[in-house]
Amino acid sequence: MVYKKITLIGRSDESFDAAVDDAVDRANDTLDNVHWVEVKEMGVEIASVEDREYQTEVEVAFQLEEPEA
Amino acid sequence: MVYKKITLIGRSDESFDAAVDDAVDRANDTLDNVHWVEVKEMGVEIASVEDREYQTEVEVAFQLEEPEA
Amino acid sequence: MVYKKITLIGRSDESFDAAVDDAVDRANDTLDNVHWVEVKEMGVEIASVEDREYQTEVEVAFQLEEPEA
Amino acid sequence: MVYKKITLIGRSDESFDAAVDDAVDRANDTLDNVHWVEVKEMGVEIASVEDREYQTEVEVAFQLEEPEA
Amino acid sequence: MVYKKITLIGRSDESFDAAVDDAVDRANDTLDNVHWVEVKEMGVEIASVEDREYQTEVEVAFQLEEPEA
Amino acid sequence: MVYKKITLIGRSDESFDAAVDDAVDRANDTLDNVHWVEVKEMGVEIASVEDREYQTEVEVAFQLEEPEA
Amino acid sequence: MVYKKITLIGRSDESFDAAVDDAVDRANDTLDNVHWVEVKEMGVEIASVEDREYQTEVEVAFQLEEPEA
Amino acid sequence: MVYKKITLIGRSDESFDAAVDDAVDRANDTLDNVHWVEVKEMGVEIASVEDREYQTEVEVAFQLEEPEA
Amino acid sequence: MVYKKITLIGRSDESFDAAVDDAVDRANDTLDNVHWVEVKEMGVEIASVEDREYQTEVEVAFQLEEPEA
Amino acid sequence: MVYKKITLIGRSDESFDAAVDDAVDRANDTLDNVHWVEVKEMGVEIASVEDREYQTEVEVAFQLEEPEA
Amino acid sequence: MVYKKITLIGRSDESFDAAVDDAVDRANDTLDNVHWVEVKEMGVEIASVEDREYQTEVEVAFQLEEPEA
Amino acid sequence: MVYKKITLIGRSDESFDAAVDDAVDRANDTLDNVHWVEVKEMGVEIASVEDREYQTEVEVAFQLEEPEA
Repeated sequence: MVYKKITLIGRSDESFDAAVDDAVDRANDTLDNVHWVEVKEMGVEIASVEDREYQTEVEVAFQLEEPEA
Repeated sequence: MVYKKITLIGRSDESFDAAVDDAVDRANDTLDNVHWVEVKEMGVEIASVEDREYQTEVEVAFQLEEPEA
Repeated sequence: MVYKKITLIGRSDESFDAAVDDAVDRANDTLDNVHWVEVKEMGVEIASVEDREYQTEVEVAFQLEEPEA
Repeated sequence: MVYKKITLIGRSDESFDAAVDDAVDRANDTLDNVHWVEVKEMGVEIASVEDREYQTEVEVAFQLEEPEA
Repeated sequence: MVYKKITLIGRSDESFDAAVDDAVDRANDTLDNVHWVEVKEMGVEIASVEDREYQTEVEVAFQLEEPEA
Repeated sequence: MVYKKITLIGRSDESFDAAVDDAVDRANDTLDNVHWVEVKEMGVEIASVEDREYQTEVEVAFQLEEPEA
Repeated sequence: MVYKKITLIGRSDESFDAAVDDAVDRANDTLDNVHWVEVKEMGVEIASVEDREYQTEVEVAFQLEEPEA
Repeated sequence: MVYKKITLIGRSDESFDAAVDDAVDRANDTLDNVHWVEVKEMGVEIASVEDREYQTEVEVAFQLEEPEA
Repeated sequence: MVYKKITLIGRSDESFDAAVDDAVDRANDTLDNVHWVEVKEMGVEIASVEDREYQTEVEVAFQLEEPEA
Repeated sequence: MVYKKITLIGRSDESFDAAVDDAVDRANDTLDNVHWVEVKEMGVEIASVEDREYQTEVEVAFQLEEPEA
Repeated sequence: MVYKKITLIGRSDESFDAAVDDAVDRANDTLDNVHWVEVKEMGVEIASVEDREYQTEVEVAFQLEEPEA
Repeated sequence: MVYKKITLIGRSDESFDAAVDDAVDRANDTLDNVHWVEVKEMGVEIASVEDREYQTEVEVAFQLEEPEA
């Protein structure tokens, strides 16, 4: 019943909301019991992209079910 | 003329902006002299809601007028 | 549906756990929808008490139901 | 015997010390058992006042006596 | 090849995203090699504006090319 | 000989100590060389459980032995 | 309408208040639209001065009017 | 009448509470006017001990009586 | 030539400036090469004193001359 | 296109730079798209090693390519 | 006599020390009275360079002589 | 068996590594059971020295053996 947290950085050309959703989508695709997400950092990458890339670093908490911490 | 600050957490199924507005709306409904709001935390609740609930914790600063700190 | 957070400091002659419970008990006595509690600080008062007083500062989050933020 | 903390911002045209005293005065006027105060932020407002307004954000800790957290 | 960082606060009547864009636009107008932007604070000004003004404090990193740090 | 750190949240109906042990037990079950644990956050979940659930977020440091960072 | 913030350290042989005023005076002398000031650090230099020099590091926020960020 | 603070790390095979008491006991044995203690860090050492050693870093504040800062 | 830092809390019935001076005076009385002081916390004690006691926690840096770290 | 961050602690008998390189080498051996590294903590282990072991805790950011967050 | 602080990020293919020196060199080339430098962040860029680029973010404090804050 | 921590600032004309070693050397000269060291701050002094002086503030943890905290 222990939770584990991992850190992801979602990215979007549109908005910070979309960048968060990008990270949550990825977490939901590969993890079974995602419980909540905490936003840690927000930024905009400019030099290496065409226009602007919104980035949001989040911590994703999910429930571990079987021993594989 | 002293200000007081309280901490609210706004919630929205749509976006972080709407979650902030949710908290500011509540503050405006019940407090007379709201001056400014500071965002403290942002997160997404997933396990206990249907889809995703965006949450934003804010500090609301308002002006006290009569002794009732 | 907005949450509000208040800050309490529970106290106990026994342990930090009991000090947290002291604050949660107080919150439950006077608030209807306490959802969660976050521990912010822990300390021990020595000079002004007989032996040792364990103190725990917590933030208590509860759901507001009617406009009275 | 639980303590509660609230956040006030004292203001003064004179000094930071006076701004702290402004907040403590307000707390003493409306609360019965103020125990201590912690300074959290200091700033100077310039654009919206005549000269300079010194502001000090403080947390005021007082003892709750009857269930009304 | 050294980077320099400056701090700007973008403002918008619409959203935090627009406030960030406001600051990035300003940086791009006056600086040649903006590389990235980090969001530091978000807030809403209420008392001195008509409705609500979303503000976002950002650090803008750009590449210095000639000695004029 | 590099160490890796992961973040777990232990849970217990009894105490914070038991919540920490819960996380350490899980780490020991699935990792070979756990060296130390750092406590990062403590909280109590109330709304979604029967009574109170003590939660402790910890960082677990263990030694990597073969390339699989 | 973007704000910019710069960091100054005011100094005084008298007091911290005078050190803050020293920095604000300097900002007002050279900048047109100073809006507010935030105190970041306070210290006392002893070894390299005759008696004691009070120092206060502040962030000064002013409004940019023309593109020259 | 000045207070001084020192940093100690108490250790226990039993619990964090016992680790705090370990540090407070040591402070009381060797210092005359211990006033209060603040908890700064908690951790568990595993690799170099038999089972688990609970460690708690605390700041101990005591009153200086004669010039020997 | 190594510096050492210790933590003192100066106290005054008058002002924060006087509380800092109280700590610096004590350091100068008992240490030979005090170089600088950093302010860490400010607070006001109310419950256990007659009126108000201003307290300032500072770190005092001084130069060690002979091996006695 | 989401990034993931993991936390490693590199170790070296020589220097902090070598400890960082130790962690980066390990990350490069086992991860395909390492983009950047952030230094979080630095320390020296003394009691359990022959001389001194320099340790550097870093966060390693790499690009996830296929769903396996 | 006011100090001003600016933020630079030095870069080097060799080491963090060289990255700091890179930023200090730049500051010395273009500013007359650099007094001290504080290290704020350290990182390694990997994806966009050939091997590894060590980066160090520093705050540079220099003395202002004539009104041009 | 309690640990105590003290704060030292090592100094070197060569590098940050040498500044850390300077502080560790001093601790080893005067303390019997130094266990580990944590780096807290790094800076460069420029105005009062010939070229550049690298400074590193560290916390040194050592084991107390007899009551003399």
